[in-house]
Amino acid sequence: MHKQTLKLFHYFRSSASHRVRIALAIKGIAYRCEAIHLLKGGGQQRSTSYLRVNPAQLVPSLETERGVLTQSLAIIEYLEELQPQPSLLPADSWGRAQVRAFALSLCCDCQPLVNLRVQQYLREQNFPEEKIKQWLTHWLRAALGSAETVLAEGQRQAGIQLYCFTDEPGMADVVLIPQMLSALRFGVDITLYPHLYEVYQYCSALPVFIEAAPENQPDAE
Amino acid sequence: MHKQTLKLFHYFRSSASHRVRIALAIKGIAYRCEAIHLLKGGGQQRSTSYLRVNPAQLVPSLETERGVLTQSLAIIEYLEELQPQPSLLPADSWGRAQVRAFALSLCCDCQPLVNLRVQQYLREQNFPEEKIKQWLTHWLRAALGSAETVLAEGQRQAGIQLYCFTDEPGMADVVLIPQMLSALRFGVDITLYPHLYEVYQYCSALPVFIEAAPENQPDAE
Repeated sequence: MHKQTLKLFHYFRSSASHRVRIALAIKGIAYRCEAIHLLKGGGQQRSTSYLRVNPAQLVPSLETERGVLTQSLAIIEYLEELQPQPSLLPADSWGRAQVRAFALSLCCDCQPLVNLRVQQYLREQNFPEEKIKQWLTHWLRAALGSAETVLAEGQRQAGIQLYCFTDEPGMADVVLIPQMLSALRFGVDITLYPHLYEVYQYCSALPVFIEAAPENQPDAE
Repeated sequence: MHKQTLKLFHYFRSSASHRVRIALAIKGIAYRCEAIHLLKGGGQQRSTSYLRVNPAQLVPSLETERGVLTQSLAIIEYLEELQPQPSLLPADSWGRAQVRAFALSLCCDCQPLVNLRVQQYLREQNFPEEKIKQWLTHWLRAALGSAETVLAEGQRQAGIQLYCFTDEPGMADVVLIPQMLSALRFGVDITLYPHLYEVYQYCSALPVFIEAAPENQPDAE
């Protein structure tokens, strides 16, 4: 793929955007970025022009030669099929299933509950700030708690690993690191999840993860 | 796979369980069921025995010869790999990406916001019943609204189809039908989404969808 063919509509702080940036960095796929500021001017994701890109008014969206693709995990699976190496999924079906389940447990049962639009909705309904904070930490702790149990069991069976389930960074790590950052931002003590925390620390120091990090995006504030 | 090798822990009314039942029915894969009642006795998903099956205390979980697999979409991808025919995904990468994005838009950005544990949490926080109802319809309408736009555009390009994106029932339909049922239950007028509604009506009358429907499960009330 050429540098000019892929354009990622993203927001530096969005976990779902962050996932796709990590996957692109691991695979060494070049792309252009267009920042969609989720707060400025009432949220650029609500603009008429972005509505044509993504009717759900969410980031990320990936513009390709074929059209626009939405949903971070669908984008990552597509990148995996287009450019299989380095692979983000194990070679065997059962391994792939475990990694997908881990990734989905965070993408479905955690991030959608703590993202910006949900916080905005709760504020509009006059949910007190203290209760919004409790809401965020409740769902983050629930998801990280069960992910920690799953990872501890997985690593007990496979032996200690640097990454979640694989010898190289994979889909589980791609999803975990942004979620840990989000948990940190909302005041969750992420050291309480030692297996997750170890992977988080290791990955965060690697060039591909650094390249994809929120603070290193052009739209970072 | 033998009848006795797969056991699905499910709840008749859970949308995520319903998805897996439809996928199993389409593929004609036999399985045993164990009902996990999400309300009885404070919720059987919180029992010590189920915690060992699924640390996230969610349904569904699929017990296989290899171990337990969680997350409906990970289970469906696994079934697709184990028994590729009849396929739930298009043959080409771009088609698969579109179907996965559609499915994820409901599995990530809709269902986790309206499921039972979220309703229970809001009730525990003394969120008024009227506001809980508004919460449910808000997220259901947002997700179905953008799914309708995506499907209308997809069908405009591909011509009218009986299913969402494919000539045979696929992953998008497997996810859509339970979400439409859930929307119906919470008082959303699903006829406002004509492309989704047409698929819903067509699928609901097919034997595999009837077999998997909530009201036809042994634990139905």
